[in-house]
Amino acid sequence: MSLHLSGWDDTIVALATPPGVGALGIIRLSGKKAIEVVNALFPSKNLAKQPSHTLHVGYLKRGEAVLDEVVVSLYKAPRSYTGEDIVEISCHGSPFIHQQVIEACLQEGTRLAKPGEFTQRAFLNGKLDLAQAEAVADLIASNTEASHKTALNSIRGGFSSLLKQLRDQLIQFSALIELELDFSQEDVEFADRTRLQSLVQTAHEQTQHLLQSFQLGNVIKNGVSVAIIGKPNAGKSTLLNALLKEDRAIVSDIPGTTRDTIEEIINIDGILFRLIDTAGIRTHSTDVIEAVGIERSLEKMKQANVVLYLFDVNETGVTELEKIVADLEAQAVYPLLVGNKVDLVNEVAARQKFQMVAGVLFIAAKSGLHLDVLKQRMVDAVLQDKVQPENVIVTNARHYHALQEVDKSLQEVMAGLENKIPGDLLSLDIRRSLHYLGIITGEVSNEDLLGYVFSKFCIGK
Amino acid sequence: MSLHLSGWDDTIVALATPPGVGALGIIRLSGKKAIEVVNALFPSKNLAKQPSHTLHVGYLKRGEAVLDEVVVSLYKAPRSYTGEDIVEISCHGSPFIHQQVIEACLQEGTRLAKPGEFTQRAFLNGKLDLAQAEAVADLIASNTEASHKTALNSIRGGFSSLLKQLRDQLIQFSALIELELDFSQEDVEFADRTRLQSLVQTAHEQTQHLLQSFQLGNVIKNGVSVAIIGKPNAGKSTLLNALLKEDRAIVSDIPGTTRDTIEEIINIDGILFRLIDTAGIRTHSTDVIEAVGIERSLEKMKQANVVLYLFDVNETGVTELEKIVADLEAQAVYPLLVGNKVDLVNEVAARQKFQMVAGVLFIAAKSGLHLDVLKQRMVDAVLQDKVQPENVIVTNARHYHALQEVDKSLQEVMAGLENKIPGDLLSLDIRRSLHYLGIITGEVSNEDLLGYVFSKFCIGK
Repeated sequence: MSLHLSGWDDTIVALATPPGVGALGIIRLSGKKAIEVVNALFPSKNLAKQPSHTLHVGYLKRGEAVLDEVVVSLYKAPRSYTGEDIVEISCHGSPFIHQQVIEACLQEGTRLAKPGEFTQRAFLNGKLDLAQAEAVADLIASNTEASHKTALNSIRGGFSSLLKQLRDQLIQFSALIELELDFSQEDVEFADRTRLQSLVQTAHEQTQHLLQSFQLGNVIKNGVSVAIIGKPNAGKSTLLNALLKEDRAIVSDIPGTTRDTIEEIINIDGILFRLIDTAGIRTHSTDVIEAVGIERSLEKMKQANVVLYLFDVNETGVTELEKIVADLEAQAVYPLLVGNKVDLVNEVAARQKFQMVAGVLFIAAKSGLHLDVLKQRMVDAVLQDKVQPENVIVTNARHYHALQEVDKSLQEVMAGLENKIPGDLLSLDIRRSLHYLGIITGEVSNEDLLGYVFSKFCIGK
Repeated sequence: MSLHLSGWDDTIVALATPPGVGALGIIRLSGKKAIEVVNALFPSKNLAKQPSHTLHVGYLKRGEAVLDEVVVSLYKAPRSYTGEDIVEISCHGSPFIHQQVIEACLQEGTRLAKPGEFTQRAFLNGKLDLAQAEAVADLIASNTEASHKTALNSIRGGFSSLLKQLRDQLIQFSALIELELDFSQEDVEFADRTRLQSLVQTAHEQTQHLLQSFQLGNVIKNGVSVAIIGKPNAGKSTLLNALLKEDRAIVSDIPGTTRDTIEEIINIDGILFRLIDTAGIRTHSTDVIEAVGIERSLEKMKQANVVLYLFDVNETGVTELEKIVADLEAQAVYPLLVGNKVDLVNEVAARQKFQMVAGVLFIAAKSGLHLDVLKQRMVDAVLQDKVQPENVIVTNARHYHALQEVDKSLQEVMAGLENKIPGDLLSLDIRRSLHYLGIITGEVSNEDLLGYVFSKFCIGK
């Protein structure tokens, strides 16, 4: 555990609530001296003698000067988030006071916490594995039903217990191989190669399943980008407004929203859709259908998870539409075709007119007709691989890459079994896959990895 | 108490921490159903059976769906901020989660709290008087040592106990007058008119003292505006930068900072100085010294608490400086004269050159020479009436206006005593002054007044 020794014995302090003015602000301390430090500033009670999980009201003082009237929450080790003594000071929500209180704590011998350092300590004390710790950051950043659910599921250990299953299978495999190696000089015939095969097969399927969930996981975490393209008179802004009207996401601050393109964000069935409204795609939307100048907005279309091609059913010819589809598909863009401006009278006619073009959806953006069908189609486009948000879903790119390595090793084991390569070589591959599983949960870790993981946290968590 | 009945029996809920992403967010409930509501969402423990001032870790659930892993703080009536049952739910700091938790609380039969409603309930339950409640809002908005100290002093009852003293004196006066009235038909000679005079005199002096403190109170609460004027080559920006370098206020968001003028804010001895850098004053700074076009920036200079006239000691003649001072004083602007660009060699010469002009201060902004003296002079300019921030200081305009009414009534009582007017008339004036004292502390209040006071709070406090 020498890697953890640096800064392991000291006591850390940070503002745990968002900065700014509010009713309350919480300053959190963790470490061996947490209670002693707050005790020195909180003369009305001897906190060291108070039981864990209790609240204490009083004045926080620095010498004779009163800093604030506060409530102190006491969590004694190991019954705390970090596993260390934790004290939380609930102050009035004034940035000036927070600064004063933090300064007073620093003077009493604590230091400022680094981003994620409370959670890092929880990990180092065995309160959470690394995958669970990472899910804490995801939970805080979660802004939809689906991202919230997957993050919480991970914190509660859903992902970790699946990894543990996987690990148990691989260790069982390893044990069987070791057995074979022990007896190898006796040239024993092993009937259990089928058993080995079935074990690694199952492990590989589970890994594959997790890998496949990443596409959805990514979408859940980062949202689905939708590029709406079409001629200027196709009704793009009417559609945009109609979608926004009902489902505009309440989220005001989506991390990672690019600043150079305007995006409107809507929430359908708990999944965020980022409707991309790039100046490029808008201005050059007429070019798009002529296959000239298509390159300019092509890049953005290709980056989008869904491309929605909107056209006016009354103004668009069948041949014209077929040409557009062919042009887009030639560029590897497979649009969702949406015929706009149908109404109750001409819907049948429109359906007949475009019956030769597959998969066209008919709507009337202005009156909202069939918008529900469009939204369902957008959700289906995301959930096409039938992974449901209720399942364990990989949302973290680091986990995804480690799982790819696990997968690679397992494939080599399977090939090795096929080719009857010696057990000691199989054993190496299995150990390699166990190593990468350990990287996800943090059983295998180093300072760089931890630094990378926890630097993405906010300070105070 | 009928005025309090509306919405008095229900349970309120609000986010108590600043909105946004952080490690933690606190959702606060107060009212008769607070414990019952959270209990319904927190199945792992029966909160009703737990003692007050305890912390409980568990999952917050809405039916089967887990909302978050939370810590619940329990404060049972009357041992709470509002005097009612209070439950605080400490969630992960995700706006999405906060919204979900608040919605779940609303569904269980609470309603969203209005701004300041927790503190209003504390007032209505006799936990705080109105002046103390208002100081809570001031404390949250405080961004300097001085504003923090005066607000905290008010919350702790410093101002309220002074008002109580005042009130006791006036009630004593009232009692003596009533006595006189009771015996008036017997035409008793009252030796105690001197006693009455001395009582009202003392009360009047205290009121005057409080009224005088408001100038400082206002400065403490809103900062001191300083207009730095002078010729373009006088070194204004050098001075500005030199002052900013050491003392720039850490405050990022000062309420009330005007958007149309650029202000730099520095903190000297716990008092905020807002260095006004208006385009007007800058552009027309040459005009200023020629007394033409002075009107353009005059308005802004007059609004400033301190006008600092900076000049280059090497480039400015004595007669020229005297003319500038005369011109400014003719416009009722009394500048702090600061001679810039002295160095160790020519300081003595400069002092001799300008010895006929009173009160000139010599600095070298570039090297920082004598900046400490300038800063002390700026602080002195504010504290000139010798009221120290340690004393009770009126910072609230509402209190100031009520005290003015108290003062007016007391002056009438004194004049009445002088003119030997009948006791029943004196009694009326005294009751009037007691009424206005009661308006400050909230003993006299109505829904409009409370609405006005608490609307200035943030939601959740």
